[in-house]
Amino acid sequence: MSSPDVVLGPNQYGKAEVRVVRVNRETPVHQLMDLNVSSMLRGDFTDCYATGDNARVIATDTQKNTVYAFAKEHGIASPEEFLLLLGRHFTDQEEVSGGRWTAESYPWERIQVPGSDGEPQAHAHSFVKSKQEVRTAALTIQDGKEHLLGGFSDLTVLKTTGSEFSGFPRDRYTTLPETQDRIMATDITARWLFSADAGTPQEAGSSQDPATLDAAPLDPVTLDFDAIYAAVKQQVLEQFALVHSLSLQQTLYAAGEAVLAAVPEIEDIRFVMPNNHHYVVDLSPFGLENPNEVFQAGDRPYGLMNASVTRRAAPARPHAWEWLGGFC
Amino acid sequence: MSSPDVVLGPNQYGKAEVRVVRVNRETPVHQLMDLNVSSMLRGDFTDCYATGDNARVIATDTQKNTVYAFAKEHGIASPEEFLLLLGRHFTDQEEVSGGRWTAESYPWERIQVPGSDGEPQAHAHSFVKSKQEVRTAALTIQDGKEHLLGGFSDLTVLKTTGSEFSGFPRDRYTTLPETQDRIMATDITARWLFSADAGTPQEAGSSQDPATLDAAPLDPVTLDFDAIYAAVKQQVLEQFALVHSLSLQQTLYAAGEAVLAAVPEIEDIRFVMPNNHHYVVDLSPFGLENPNEVFQAGDRPYGLMNASVTRRAAPARPHAWEWLGGFC
Amino acid sequence: MSSPDVVLGPNQYGKAEVRVVRVNRETPVHQLMDLNVSSMLRGDFTDCYATGDNARVIATDTQKNTVYAFAKEHGIASPEEFLLLLGRHFTDQEEVSGGRWTAESYPWERIQVPGSDGEPQAHAHSFVKSKQEVRTAALTIQDGKEHLLGGFSDLTVLKTTGSEFSGFPRDRYTTLPETQDRIMATDITARWLFSADAGTPQEAGSSQDPATLDAAPLDPVTLDFDAIYAAVKQQVLEQFALVHSLSLQQTLYAAGEAVLAAVPEIEDIRFVMPNNHHYVVDLSPFGLENPNEVFQAGDRPYGLMNASVTRRAAPARPHAWEWLGGFC
Amino acid sequence: MSSPDVVLGPNQYGKAEVRVVRVNRETPVHQLMDLNVSSMLRGDFTDCYATGDNARVIATDTQKNTVYAFAKEHGIASPEEFLLLLGRHFTDQEEVSGGRWTAESYPWERIQVPGSDGEPQAHAHSFVKSKQEVRTAALTIQDGKEHLLGGFSDLTVLKTTGSEFSGFPRDRYTTLPETQDRIMATDITARWLFSADAGTPQEAGSSQDPATLDAAPLDPVTLDFDAIYAAVKQQVLEQFALVHSLSLQQTLYAAGEAVLAAVPEIEDIRFVMPNNHHYVVDLSPFGLENPNEVFQAGDRPYGLMNASVTRRAAPARPHAWEWLGGFC
Repeated sequence: MSSPDVVLGPNQYGKAEVRVVRVNRETPVHQLMDLNVSSMLRGDFTDCYATGDNARVIATDTQKNTVYAFAKEHGIASPEEFLLLLGRHFTDQEEVSGGRWTAESYPWERIQVPGSDGEPQAHAHSFVKSKQEVRTAALTIQDGKEHLLGGFSDLTVLKTTGSEFSGFPRDRYTTLPETQDRIMATDITARWLFSADAGTPQEAGSSQDPATLDAAPLDPVTLDFDAIYAAVKQQVLEQFALVHSLSLQQTLYAAGEAVLAAVPEIEDIRFVMPNNHHYVVDLSPFGLENPNEVFQAGDRPYGLMNASVTRRAAPARPHAWEWLGGFC
Repeated sequence: MSSPDVVLGPNQYGKAEVRVVRVNRETPVHQLMDLNVSSMLRGDFTDCYATGDNARVIATDTQKNTVYAFAKEHGIASPEEFLLLLGRHFTDQEEVSGGRWTAESYPWERIQVPGSDGEPQAHAHSFVKSKQEVRTAALTIQDGKEHLLGGFSDLTVLKTTGSEFSGFPRDRYTTLPETQDRIMATDITARWLFSADAGTPQEAGSSQDPATLDAAPLDPVTLDFDAIYAAVKQQVLEQFALVHSLSLQQTLYAAGEAVLAAVPEIEDIRFVMPNNHHYVVDLSPFGLENPNEVFQAGDRPYGLMNASVTRRAAPARPHAWEWLGGFC
Repeated sequence: MSSPDVVLGPNQYGKAEVRVVRVNRETPVHQLMDLNVSSMLRGDFTDCYATGDNARVIATDTQKNTVYAFAKEHGIASPEEFLLLLGRHFTDQEEVSGGRWTAESYPWERIQVPGSDGEPQAHAHSFVKSKQEVRTAALTIQDGKEHLLGGFSDLTVLKTTGSEFSGFPRDRYTTLPETQDRIMATDITARWLFSADAGTPQEAGSSQDPATLDAAPLDPVTLDFDAIYAAVKQQVLEQFALVHSLSLQQTLYAAGEAVLAAVPEIEDIRFVMPNNHHYVVDLSPFGLENPNEVFQAGDRPYGLMNASVTRRAAPARPHAWEWLGGFC
Repeated sequence: MSSPDVVLGPNQYGKAEVRVVRVNRETPVHQLMDLNVSSMLRGDFTDCYATGDNARVIATDTQKNTVYAFAKEHGIASPEEFLLLLGRHFTDQEEVSGGRWTAESYPWERIQVPGSDGEPQAHAHSFVKSKQEVRTAALTIQDGKEHLLGGFSDLTVLKTTGSEFSGFPRDRYTTLPETQDRIMATDITARWLFSADAGTPQEAGSSQDPATLDAAPLDPVTLDFDAIYAAVKQQVLEQFALVHSLSLQQTLYAAGEAVLAAVPEIEDIRFVMPNNHHYVVDLSPFGLENPNEVFQAGDRPYGLMNASVTRRAAPARPHAWEWLGGFC
């Protein structure tokens, strides 16, 4: 039935949204990791597509089982480290040449209860979910190289002043007035690319030879992913607060610069930022002034920024970013 | 065209989800209130339904305008107080005999930035959204009486131990094993009913005459709605953490009791609590034990509890709770 | 620990969103039913709430198992009939005095494929999901009586003309202009209450004695729930299309009247209808007229109508409608 | 403040989700187009990001205005054609070198009402929304070339038999049994790439010179986008129904082949297909057999397929697919 003029193009397959909760009960003070893991495999799967021959198709159910078994065997130290374990396991198998492993990680805080001294203390095994943002990670293995992204999604921020927008071109379709004072609000989604040799122990005195850089894999043992995550989030929040903004683009770029300055292990950071418009309500029909006090929070449409801030010397690594939206 | 055997039953109409953001800029340290307000009016609207005569129909657009104008004129001290202003305004009008006013209120925290001494300090006009839960309020005015509900929705909690479920009946369709140790997790939604005379200043030495109780309206001036909100939330979190739970029902009831003990202004509190099941993954096919360490977080189905905890002496006030799901 | 001044108020518990797909394979032309079933039990569960004694608590897991077992044993003739089976089964048990059983039912259509004659024909076992609306049903059993609701949710309709809104009161906060021609659009959600004796076989020549009416249970054998569903949906669509509308309320009422005229088994029908506003875009800054040709579809806020259309002689049956929004 | 070692990487900005409804009222039989349009511009915007200089930043508000004005001036013949108008307009401007324009289009059907002869007839201006799937389009202009994608999202299909899965590798983590009969269900999302010269009028007798192919722009006048859309959807549905499936991958590939065979204007089609698992419920504890009659519809996890089916001779056109997920 197959046509000789038609071929299988880029493809991947796997199991999406494996919801794994891992409790570390080694001490009475329990630790909790709450992840949503997806595993997508790449390789030569032409026979499956063209003829239904599944001899090389590692079942998606097997991928799910592996997530749960690895959570027990290896624990979940961080989303990034867990994906490295999964990706290296699957690409060790003959059928798999690469893939994409992603995770969402949901932060939980300990519930505060009164201690014996009446002061609040953190409970040992009871938690409340912090929904301020969702932490994300994505690992791509392609052509024998690893590309690791940390990230977060939907960190929602708003400033009530310190934001302008003016000096833009005006054409037949332009009606927007210039403004020197507006609300600026956005849901910050960010992904950052770890340098290919981040965390790789270097021999003393050696300088890194760019030609062999790709051969040195990421070393999770020497990378503190949680500390990096906290540093990125804090830099982004600070820049949002402190920059007097002439545009959302300017704020985005300042945040990226600050992250790259603070975290040497990162070589590129990309943002998706909607401009969550807040419209000053016209209260003049009611005989009222409205000096930026009452706003309508808009839903749609919204401005939207997609941009990368990157080190000038960073190599092009498109495989890190492809297919993140589902389409290969 | 109208049939004499058919009549209009219970009804209300209005404007839903007016998104109002109010900034108080009186000092350089801005205050931010972020609400989603709905206004539903009740009265004799038969002519509109039966013949399209709109002479008594206060336009939903007018209701929206009133929300924005009131936000300017009166500010938004708290969701509860803002709804009392709106409800009393509309029921002062000839066309309106009652109604339901509701609000969601979204909490924001100040972004922490380094101060001049290097210590973190709260920024004056930059905020990050705390999504831990959404605060709610609902005011019903019916038959000349006010019924005010505070509340929150989707406060997500989880405990990794300290929860059992056993001793339940077994019939032909029962397969669930008893358990002495499980994860318990839920998204707590609660609404609490303020006593009809909460906050009402009493004459010294007078005892409250129940027959006249309804005549004494809620007095927002003497009620600290924010403090009550914080107290309810803390009681609910503490009971969830501290009660060794034999069922989610028991935890719910303990939370209700604690709230009523701590907050005398509340006479009834109702909960919607799903039981967010976490299934122990069977790792035995992989030669691994799983002593409550690795769980699959389930989506559907889930257990579900709806229950009221109430003061024995509280009067029946069904109007407070009707129509909350949309159907009158 | 329990306080004598605090009591358990109204309550119910159960299993929500049991996703059951039932295939009838008796012939090569398969039949498909796709339901989302919830079961909530009522009774004297004070001990469970107050002390954690589960001796009367039929596990929610058992309720889930019952749904699946009944789907096999009895099939699923219609959502309404399936809920009657479940409700009668549970209230036959000593622990259960009443409850609420609800279902969403997802319609599927057969995929059309070319037949041997080249004409389209319906495939025997391949289906495409029709998402035009979701069918719903809800059964309440309380105090020994059954209250059965059919329904649908989110049937989205729009008319490009034939809708006006004018003649409404104007106050300080009114700015809306009157209009003789607008888009009217809504997502129709409806629930209809079957008469208590609908489908009950009557003895020839007997007149129904209202005093015994409640004793005659609904008889699903003699009720064609699918035909009634189709009739209600068609009446609602027709009235939306054919009524020249002076308000959304008028259209709602006309739809209710038409349903009650067409379906004698129904005694009350209630609607939730948002007014999905479409705003005429002001194109005059671009030198363009806009005679109701280009609209912005709004998100929030929206108008909202809740109303019942009922037979004058219908008895009050509040239990049918309570708690539909989650709060008891 | 800017660091010389940090640069702006790939970026685009614009206005997202402009909800435009266009009514054609030229005759009493109104036509309705309902779109959700996004416009993202690319060019040299370094100054805006680095210094807040907005001199080259066409305001996102201007982009929104342009959508509405074009809807009036040009009408909306099809989503694809409307995007071509927008994209060519913006890239004609000095500040813009390329961009991405996308649309969702919501299908509506006419409400059927009784005609004067009692037979159903389509109403002239009243519509019901068909939610079976959402139609999509995406135009990329980059480096002077146009890349146009048609598509749809979430066409949900299910077959109750005619699907197997067996012959897959088994390792330590494999527990899935092989099956010769299962439910197969998916939500089909597809995008197809029009050939660069689709619709371009060719001189008689000429053969297409690949070297000049890119210079011949798409010609919407000679392309019937609606007919192509209908043909693709029908081919996909038919293959889902008719192929006896050994895997979801095989079904996907057969659908792609059939589309490419039926529609010469398309050179590549890509699918995102979850495998919506339906689990056979174990009824044996209740003494019941379950020969594929009662299923639990699962939520998460789910299998997931991403794959392209392409003409062997098609040129690589990565710009068509990049950034579809938001990250540039």
